[in-house]
Order: sequence, then structure tokens, then C-alpha cells
Amino acid sequence: HPRFLAFIPSAPSEASVLFDLVVAASSLYGGSWLESAGAVYAENQALSWLVGLAGLPEAAGGAFVSGGTAGNLSALVAARSAAAEKREHRPRRWALLATGRSHSSIQAAADVMDVDVVLVEPDEHGRMTGSALGRRLDELDEEQRDGLFAVVTTAGTTNLGVIDDLETIGFLAKTNDLWMHVDGAYGGAALAAPSRRQLFNGIEHADSIVLDPHKWLFAPFDCAALIYREPEVARRAHTQHAGYLDPINDRDEWNPSDYAHHLSRRARGLPFWYSLATYGTDAYRDAIEKTLRVAEEAARAVADRSYVELLEEPTLSIVAFRRLGWQPADYQAWSERMLAEGIAFVLPSVFEGETMLRLAIVNPATTIEDIELILDQLA
Amino acid sequence: HPRFLAFIPSAPSEASVLFDLVVAASSLYGGSWLESAGAVYAENQALSWLVGLAGLPEAAGGAFVSGGTAGNLSALVAARSAAAEKREHRPRRWALLATGRSHSSIQAAADVMDVDVVLVEPDEHGRMTGSALGRRLDELDEEQRDGLFAVVTTAGTTNLGVIDDLETIGFLAKTNDLWMHVDGAYGGAALAAPSRRQLFNGIEHADSIVLDPHKWLFAPFDCAALIYREPEVARRAHTQHAGYLDPINDRDEWNPSDYAHHLSRRARGLPFWYSLATYGTDAYRDAIEKTLRVAEEAARAVADRSYVELLEEPTLSIVAFRRLGWQPADYQAWSERMLAEGIAFVLPSVFEGETMLRLAIVNPATTIEDIELILDQLA
Repeated sequence: HPRFLAFIPSAPSEASVLFDLVVAASSLYGGSWLESAGAVYAENQALSWLVGLAGLPEAAGGAFVSGGTAGNLSALVAARSAAAEKREHRPRRWALLATGRSHSSIQAAADVMDVDVVLVEPDEHGRMTGSALGRRLDELDEEQRDGLFAVVTTAGTTNLGVIDDLETIGFLAKTNDLWMHVDGAYGGAALAAPSRRQLFNGIEHADSIVLDPHKWLFAPFDCAALIYREPEVARRAHTQHAGYLDPINDRDEWNPSDYAHHLSRRARGLPFWYSLATYGTDAYRDAIEKTLRVAEEAARAVADRSYVELLEEPTLSIVAFRRLGWQPADYQAWSERMLAEGIAFVLPSVFEGETMLRLAIVNPATTIEDIELILDQLA
Repeated sequence: HPRFLAFIPSAPSEASVLFDLVVAASSLYGGSWLESAGAVYAENQALSWLVGLAGLPEAAGGAFVSGGTAGNLSALVAARSAAAEKREHRPRRWALLATGRSHSSIQAAADVMDVDVVLVEPDEHGRMTGSALGRRLDELDEEQRDGLFAVVTTAGTTNLGVIDDLETIGFLAKTNDLWMHVDGAYGGAALAAPSRRQLFNGIEHADSIVLDPHKWLFAPFDCAALIYREPEVARRAHTQHAGYLDPINDRDEWNPSDYAHHLSRRARGLPFWYSLATYGTDAYRDAIEKTLRVAEEAARAVADRSYVELLEEPTLSIVAFRRLGWQPADYQAWSERMLAEGIAFVLPSVFEGETMLRLAIVNPATTIEDIELILDQLA
């Protein structure tokens, strides 16, 4: 629905939905090359497109997982495993670096892994900058630094679509021997948009990237791409061993089960691959550019209306703004009325303690008229 | 395919596959009550059937997750969180109890969570018994006991279908203040078979259970049921917080996202629910009993042939046997020939260092004639 703009909605293409039926009906086990070489080959083609957009080496690869939460966890487990391989002793506490603007799944992954999160202060736009990261590193004592294994950057925050300073962070990660993870679950899709590509400069330094086709690349749930610069490192961290699995593990083949925290898996990347193959990558580029244009127009439409005010110029396709004079209860009542009347699904969000409204535009069917209709309801 | 018997194959029903298309096409976000109350209601009905089969209290519940690996991890994270809530200090190392026959995902979960695995010696049939668990607990010193938070039992091992002694382990778990987790990913489906129900006695003591409908309950990938005795404990462990999520978290509703390590999710329990609703639970009972009968007949057919020998009488629907006089290379060559000729997909497995063959019968379309055809190829 073009006016369901809360959270990051899913807007799967027709071809991807149709192929999802094929995936279900064929009952392919997508975990191993032995059992589904064709599916894995196709999934890897789709991953290669993303690898190319990010500018990673051709040998980069990984697997499609169920969502950003599973992807971020799996990447960070590989990161910790890579760090452990280099150390003689377990540090007192493992720790990762992130900002408070990182997605909630980063804290969830840290909780699951029982590692600390060392917070880096974001700048006034909510970005992690190289200088803030450098300052934070300088503040840590020997023991704290010893436990650091990764820096988590965000390429398109969920709340505002803000992209961290990947270029200098990548440089700092390298000099400090830290794994650089890029959470592009929502925003990574904009790599395909030439108008925004430069914002991602530095992503080619990433050791791992998560990018969800079920968000802004028109795939059905649940489909998140997890990519590693050196897949072999992830394989050592994630391969499961068992008597009945050894015949698979002994082969020198690409088994998606080896690259994340999962074993049985649906060939969940196939609907995305089929949709890419059907419409072509140019159609993807155009559809994403279109949502970006609508987001720009939406920001202008907000600026044109005296009763609303932009929180921040949109970086990607999320437009956040306040309704002047409203209390949280006013936002809530309005949101419920919009949903009840079937006009729109827009939820109040909270940013730095302030209630606001947030439009996440990932559906190319959403037009500026849809947005204006919503804004007019706020008058 | 009725003769694809390696691993635990998937054999989805027609209704479940059809409904999987509906799930994909409707693009429902299955994470929250707000966004998909109907889907969550139906999923919870399907979970209730499983809760009833296990004899857990009616208030038990959880969510469908992508597979046994995600389910086991999520349950154990909830278990550790429950233990942490009761303690003042973090123990030196967290630890769980399991046998070496536990599924590989248990070790994988322990690795991700960075907790130790304290191994309990299985008996001669590969079961964890209450007495072995008691002995192991007695051997531990104060500090080791302090870190224990869960005992992981298996109700149907993947290699042989063996079920731990749930009754006495449940008693010991309670007296030692340990969370009892039951990994019934494969075997739990046999709860629906009256002929085997008694083997699961004691499962009603479980604090959490994982049971995969995509294995032996005729659902398409990926569909694993994760059930908690007290869902509120899991909710405190898994709910993700963020400005844009708070409008959901503030409501007193059942959000599947809160009960496992995931956020975005496909309504992956719906195809299973629809299939149950279409065919009825009696048809499920009958289909499972049929696979159990075929497994019994298969065991007799092995016993009738002089060149093969049963490893163990099957407990559930896995029939494991050796081909007398064969070396690992003979098994491998035979298995490859069977696949190449399209006769069957049966892989050699390894049990206690010995290569063997293993038939996992979860498809009601598999007949004893299919099995005999395979056995005859071994002559």
C-alpha cells in the first residue's frame, strides 16, 4: 500500500512474489550446494550484484539470511571469531564500537553474544565520524582496547536514513585492526542509485555488510543479504559439524549454511534473484531513484506547510518532521484515525525524546500526491 | 521425493505450499500484533496445538522462527537472561549442560553466546539419563555450578531419533534451578502419535521447546516453533527497543518479534496453520503414525537381509544400519550412484566413528516398497 509508510515497509515486486511460490513448492533445501546447486548459484549471482555495487573484491560473498537481526549477529560472530584466532588469550570482556543510533539489533546481538558495546558519540546529524571514533579509541585503557573486535557502522539509520562516515572509519578500522561491519539493512539499497552512491564511499573497506532486499529492493519477507570480504573467515566461525553433515562439509563447495548462524534454510534469495533477472538492474536503479525523488519532494512539501517542520533534510528516503504545537497524545490520536479510516499507516516515532512523524518511502508506487494527502490531514 | 531420505527432508503438504504463496503475496509483516493481528492469531492457534500436545500450561506460547538453530539459540538466550535476573553478579563463565549427541546447533548457540558446554555422558543408547546428569552435577565445583543456567535435552536426536529421559531430567532441573530446554526440532512431531507419546513423558516440565514443522509436520521451509512455559521471561530477553518501535512495545499485545532473536519476520507459521486447518489434526496424527509404521517395517526389512545390520532399533522414524564388509569409500560410491541414477538420495553418516547409512522417514508417501528397493541395491 503506497501510504503505509511506518517502519520500513515491504513492497515486493510481482515477479519476486511469484517466484516465492516456486521456492515454497519446490521444497528445495537451500543450505548446501549438494542439495540445491542451482538455487545457490542463482543466489550467489544476486549477491555478486550487491558485491559489485559496494566495490568489494570479487571473492566476497556470503548468504541470504532471514533478516537484518540475523545478519548483524552472524557478521559480528564472524568478527569475534576472527579476532579470537589472532589472540593467544581470551580478553576479559569482548567489546564492539557503535553509536546509540545503531539499529536495535546491534544491542540485541551484543546481548546474545555477551559482549560490551562501547558507545561512540554521534555528530549533530547523528553520524559516526572518524574523529569521534578516534577520540573514543584514545580514551580506552589497555584492557578495554584488548577486547575490541569490531566497529559497527550504519549506512542508512532506520530512524532518519543517516549514513556514517565510512571512509575515515574504514581507515581507522584498518589501522586499529578492527573488523568493520556496515549495517545497510535499510539504506544499502541506495548503492544502486547513482545520485547517492558517493555517500557510501568507503563501504569498500567493509569486512561485512548486511543489506535487506525485503526492505528497499522489492523482495518479499524474509530476505537479508549478508556479505563478507573474506567468506572463509565466516566459514570457520559458522560451519556446524555432525556425523550426518560431514559428507557435505568434506566437499569443497559453497554451502550457504556455513556463512551465518543457521542450518536448514529456505532458498530465500531466489525471489530477489528472479525479480532482478526479470526486470533488470536498470529497473532497480530507476525504482530506487524514483523513491528518492519522492522523498525530496516530500521534504519540500513539508517545508511549504507552516504547521509542520522538517527534523533534518532527508539523506535517503526517510522524511521525518514534527507537527508544531502537538503533544505525543495528539500524534497518537491522529495516527490511529489515519489507520482506522484507511487513509495511511504512519506511526509517531521518538527522536531524542521528541515525538515526531516519519515517512519511510520504499515503494515506487508512492507518489508525491500520496504524501501531500497525508500532510494535508495534519493541518 | 519419497526416496530422498538423507538429512531430515522436508515434505510439505499441498495446502501449506499454496498458503505460503498467500503469505508471500500479502506481504504481511509478521512481527507485531498491530501490523498482522489476524496472522499472529492464527499462528498462535497452531502453537496452542503443540502446547497442548506437550502438556504445557495454556499460558505457554512463543513464536515461529526460521529454524531449529534460531529456536535453540533464542531459547537459550532467554534461559541465560532468566538466570541473570536471579543473580547479583555475573558468574565467571556461563555454562549449559548437554550431551555430545545434542544437535550441532547447540554447540553453535554456545559459541555465539560465548558460554561453556558441560558434557553429560550419554547411556549406551545415546540418551541423557537423570542419573548421568545427577552424577555430572555432583562432580562440579562451586564456581562451575554457579555459571550453570540450562540443561539441553533432545527429544529425537537427528542421527538416530533417540529421546532423553525427560521425566527425571525435568525433576533434576527443577531441584537445581536449571532451565530445561527440549530440542524436539525433528522428533517433537511424534508427540502427535499416540503410539509414541509416552516416550515424551516429562516434556511438560520444559521451560522451552523447539519443534520444526518444516521437518515432520509437512510445512515448507523455514518454520520452527519456539515455545516457552513463561513467555514473559522471553519477552524481557528479546524485545528490541527503538524510537520507532516504542509505539508497538507500549501496547499490551502479542508481538512475535518479542519472543526470539529476530525483528522483521515473515508470518512463517501460517502455511502450517492453514494446512492443519485444512486437513485437521487427525490427518496429522495418521500421517505421522504411518511414517512410524514404515520405519518399523524398514527395521524388520534390514533384519531380514544378511548383508545389512541395524545399528539400533529405531525409536522414531530414523532407521540406521551398516552394510557388512563395507569401507567408507564403498558407502560413498554407492550413495553417489543412487543419486546419479535417480534411485534414492541416501548419504552415509558417521556414528561413533563408524560409517553407516541412515534413512529419515518423514514423508507419508514413502512406502516399505521404496525402502526395500533401496535395501536391495545394497546386496
